[in-house]
Amino acid sequence: MPTLYNRIANQNLDRLSALSDGVFAFAMTLLVLDLRLPEPGMVHSEHDLWRALGALAPSLVIYLMGFLTLGIFWNGQQTQLNYIERGDRDLAWIHLAFLFTITLMPFSTRLLAEFVHYRAAVLVYWANILAPGALLYTSWKYVSGKEMIRKETPLEIQAAICRRVFTAQCLYAVGAALCVFGSLWSVAFIFALQLNYAIAPRLPGRRKIASAV
Amino acid sequence: MPTLYNRIANQNLDRLSALSDGVFAFAMTLLVLDLRLPEPGMVHSEHDLWRALGALAPSLVIYLMGFLTLGIFWNGQQTQLNYIERGDRDLAWIHLAFLFTITLMPFSTRLLAEFVHYRAAVLVYWANILAPGALLYTSWKYVSGKEMIRKETPLEIQAAICRRVFTAQCLYAVGAALCVFGSLWSVAFIFALQLNYAIAPRLPGRRKIASAV
Amino acid sequence: MPTLYNRIANQNLDRLSALSDGVFAFAMTLLVLDLRLPEPGMVHSEHDLWRALGALAPSLVIYLMGFLTLGIFWNGQQTQLNYIERGDRDLAWIHLAFLFTITLMPFSTRLLAEFVHYRAAVLVYWANILAPGALLYTSWKYVSGKEMIRKETPLEIQAAICRRVFTAQCLYAVGAALCVFGSLWSVAFIFALQLNYAIAPRLPGRRKIASAV
Amino acid sequence: MPTLYNRIANQNLDRLSALSDGVFAFAMTLLVLDLRLPEPGMVHSEHDLWRALGALAPSLVIYLMGFLTLGIFWNGQQTQLNYIERGDRDLAWIHLAFLFTITLMPFSTRLLAEFVHYRAAVLVYWANILAPGALLYTSWKYVSGKEMIRKETPLEIQAAICRRVFTAQCLYAVGAALCVFGSLWSVAFIFALQLNYAIAPRLPGRRKIASAV
Repeated sequence: MPTLYNRIANQNLDRLSALSDGVFAFAMTLLVLDLRLPEPGMVHSEHDLWRALGALAPSLVIYLMGFLTLGIFWNGQQTQLNYIERGDRDLAWIHLAFLFTITLMPFSTRLLAEFVHYRAAVLVYWANILAPGALLYTSWKYVSGKEMIRKETPLEIQAAICRRVFTAQCLYAVGAALCVFGSLWSVAFIFALQLNYAIAPRLPGRRKIASAV
Repeated sequence: MPTLYNRIANQNLDRLSALSDGVFAFAMTLLVLDLRLPEPGMVHSEHDLWRALGALAPSLVIYLMGFLTLGIFWNGQQTQLNYIERGDRDLAWIHLAFLFTITLMPFSTRLLAEFVHYRAAVLVYWANILAPGALLYTSWKYVSGKEMIRKETPLEIQAAICRRVFTAQCLYAVGAALCVFGSLWSVAFIFALQLNYAIAPRLPGRRKIASAV
Repeated sequence: MPTLYNRIANQNLDRLSALSDGVFAFAMTLLVLDLRLPEPGMVHSEHDLWRALGALAPSLVIYLMGFLTLGIFWNGQQTQLNYIERGDRDLAWIHLAFLFTITLMPFSTRLLAEFVHYRAAVLVYWANILAPGALLYTSWKYVSGKEMIRKETPLEIQAAICRRVFTAQCLYAVGAALCVFGSLWSVAFIFALQLNYAIAPRLPGRRKIASAV
Repeated sequence: MPTLYNRIANQNLDRLSALSDGVFAFAMTLLVLDLRLPEPGMVHSEHDLWRALGALAPSLVIYLMGFLTLGIFWNGQQTQLNYIERGDRDLAWIHLAFLFTITLMPFSTRLLAEFVHYRAAVLVYWANILAPGALLYTSWKYVSGKEMIRKETPLEIQAAICRRVFTAQCLYAVGAALCVFGSLWSVAFIFALQLNYAIAPRLPGRRKIASAV
């Protein structure tokens, strides 16, 4: 029997959403904070400055990748919460754990930007995709078991949400496994996968791939 | 045919607004974070401190300019979202892309503050005005095409929103082009333009300019 | 005649509140970010660590003062917005200007923490109290003139809001003027004033002072 | 008699919640910001990078502990606010004081991560758990005395909220007292206590402990 306190805590999902939006907004903005300005002492002409800015391009691509990851998880969490009727204490803690993995994202993104040629960095990054995915899956299983999903939600949507997380995580695992051939293969695969999730449905030619995932 | 998951994602615009407000609030506060304190070792009198503070004035003007840019885009996005009935996944990603460009703003503002005499810095800054403008335009075109605009919105408002973005971007492009004469001309023109957007409608004498844009 | 675009922008105050809360939350948290950890190399015993922590106390008091300032302005803005029926573009820009001065607060607080013995630092800090106060005053005058205040607001409340800002700013100006005798007099007076605003109404003995301001 | 201004301020709890969510979101994300990347110059092989990442594990555990602390207080504040009918100025300032202690959390967490073998760091950390707990207790006593609690709240819930804070703080005090045997005993006890609060109710075997607290 749960304590009285635990039964009354966190029945309202609004503040959980607000906290999550704050964490995501902050993590997204932090990503780019690490783009360092060119050293003023090294810049003596327009050409120097363009070259220094060009040297930032690889980091920028990694940050874009981190932003995509955050965007995908923000979308995923939001879609779930929209279908949940009410919260409880355990659900709040599942989502706090989810948010903890999100706060680690700026770290693992910077790690990847700095050590992109190392498998260790790729695997840490992948672990940071796996963990929030697993927690979103846990969250959905939890609310399914406790009948906390909105009554009007069709059954096929309930299945779709689980399937979505599961398929995506399998593909990310494939991406991570590619690092036996070289870390850049992993990065390229994961990046392509994320771009597909983000923009594919808008490109007619790619619709079939998107609908398969 | 979009997947089931994609059809159900992001129908609610509230969290998109909340995420955007978080990103804007954070980017606005970060701008000023780079104002460095005078070195305590260099300050031996009131006069030294005033002089050191005076030396920060040009940076402060650039940060004010960055704040104006963020304020203008925050206004623009908010006005749009107010007229949109419901969201979908693609709209969420258009706005996430928009927010990505917003997170780059503290970087390009700092770049401009540090390298204001270089055309490269001005052009990067301008690109960072062009990109969110183009994405807001895309967003409005998208919701117009999909009939996601609130029913009660008069047609002339729909046209006004597009025209606004388009005219402003043309003027910014003129400002950027001025950097062939010198980067400071660009900065001055863009700054004046932004001040006009922000405060002009309150000055009787300038009403005509404002109503022209 | 304002343009069509300007008439339709920012009618909704919710996002202005959300943006403000984000800026205040961020500025409040940033204040403390500058508390530096003691240098590990300098700490060889419990006693060293206690002493190093004790040395942070003056900075902590200044940060508390900065937090009080932010809390007072957050309260002031919120009370106003509660009585405003709807927004418009000009009101949004008045509040964006207000938020700009708020984003400067971590800078002027750090300046005061570092240079508390210099009048220049006290005057900059005071200017950073004067500016948001003046903008809140402008905001209230603006909505009064445009009849944007909620119908049910009693007239004496409308007067109370103006009087509050005005009296407080006069007292802060007195505090700033005290720096002719020494900057610490100013700091002590302003701090006492802020504590009075924050906690006085809860101390029976001080009620009369609070009701006088 | 409170002034008119003070009677009208802060009747709405929504913005207090929004400000709190912003402060918590920011403090949570800041915690991890201090995880430093391994020095690129020190990493010459996969093995070096794994070892450098392994060396971050103790810090990560401390940050997880800081996150748990923040999560527990976020939960506690939210549960309270859900049962409060309306706010007033004094309640707003009690919660602003609560938020001030929350903004100190990233500092005391970093202090603990750096000086985990010093009792001083443990006691500062404990003080930073005691203070927000005491303020939440004050807040609940205040709204109880002023009849600001929602009418429909059962009396046993009102008692449960006080008991919860009180029991938890007693246990934390026991944890802090353990530092006479060594600071790590305190850290381990407090960490175990926090994990119990966060996850215990989901483990059948531990239910009795959780319901006892």
